[in-house]
Amino acid sequence: MPDFAEPLARLITEFKRLPGIGQKSAQRIAFHVLRSGREDAERLARALLDVKDKLGLCRVCNNISDGEVCQFCRDDRRDPKVICVVEEAHNIVGIESTRQFEGRYHVLHGALSPLRGIGPDSLKIKGLVERIGEGGIQEIIVATNPTVEGEATAVYLARLLKPLGVKVSRIAMGIPVGSDLEFADEVTISKAMEGRREM
Amino acid sequence: MPDFAEPLARLITEFKRLPGIGQKSAQRIAFHVLRSGREDAERLARALLDVKDKLGLCRVCNNISDGEVCQFCRDDRRDPKVICVVEEAHNIVGIESTRQFEGRYHVLHGALSPLRGIGPDSLKIKGLVERIGEGGIQEIIVATNPTVEGEATAVYLARLLKPLGVKVSRIAMGIPVGSDLEFADEVTISKAMEGRREM
Repeated sequence: MPDFAEPLARLITEFKRLPGIGQKSAQRIAFHVLRSGREDAERLARALLDVKDKLGLCRVCNNISDGEVCQFCRDDRRDPKVICVVEEAHNIVGIESTRQFEGRYHVLHGALSPLRGIGPDSLKIKGLVERIGEGGIQEIIVATNPTVEGEATAVYLARLLKPLGVKVSRIAMGIPVGSDLEFADEVTISKAMEGRREM
Repeated sequence: MPDFAEPLARLITEFKRLPGIGQKSAQRIAFHVLRSGREDAERLARALLDVKDKLGLCRVCNNISDGEVCQFCRDDRRDPKVICVVEEAHNIVGIESTRQFEGRYHVLHGALSPLRGIGPDSLKIKGLVERIGEGGIQEIIVATNPTVEGEATAVYLARLLKPLGVKVSRIAMGIPVGSDLEFADEVTISKAMEGRREM
């Protein structure tokens, strides 16, 4: 890239590695950094390194945490009897945004995928079984993704956990609110039909 | 934002300051950084600071440069008789991408805007006059934006520079290639009519 001075070309390359950022966006951002103050660049640089240095996984639920125990497991107002199981820590953001769920979480850090060699031992399932073993848990809501892998994981968890005496439920699949039947694929529609509720 | 541990929330906030990055993109990128290696975060952090520390303006043309003189002014294969004047350094990228222009550049770092208090003295015009004064320059191509400010700047430059004995030209305005007349505004269409060429 002879059009850019080396440090600028390098910054553009680094931005392009980030998800959803192509050549044009990377250029625009790099020129923005160039124009803005050094302290802005420093703050971003520091935030990048702090995320790598100061965050770990919650000892209880494997969520991303800046302490030994994450903010959800620390929060006494949250119901410890209900655990929502998600594939990745960022899935919690979506669930929290509803402001409806007041239980705790458990992050698996992946989903079962025999084709990619991801079996139950690759996931953080053992800790979940231990949490149930400690008692006091009544329901496990499996909120893995509605994909082949997420479904396989849900089925596996249901078989594993039900014998431990907890209720295992799965989030509903169907037509997204505000969407149109026209745009829904046939699997989604058939899930929506299956999951119909009396009005 | 109680949903994120502090360093993660801070990284998301910093990413959101960048142009074209909203809450969702910032989250996605921050979680990507979290998942990828520390060396990736380090490289981006270093690139951010290097852009602020190692780059300055070219002594000749005010382009962004990692040396005293930028790569275009250094390049002997480029024609020193033709200078393309642009508002911002990033405009050079677009012109270079055509691989058609083989002259040199001059970056004004802005455009005339009396309303915002930007007069000729706020722009890097003096250096351009000096370059012409040194002799050897035949044509100045004014490639400022086709906006009110860019046009005003072009007119100002034409009046200032023509008496110095150089040809001053303006890039063509018209319908973008691949576009449709239907989507062009009336000013663009009238410019396209005005600038028509015999076939």
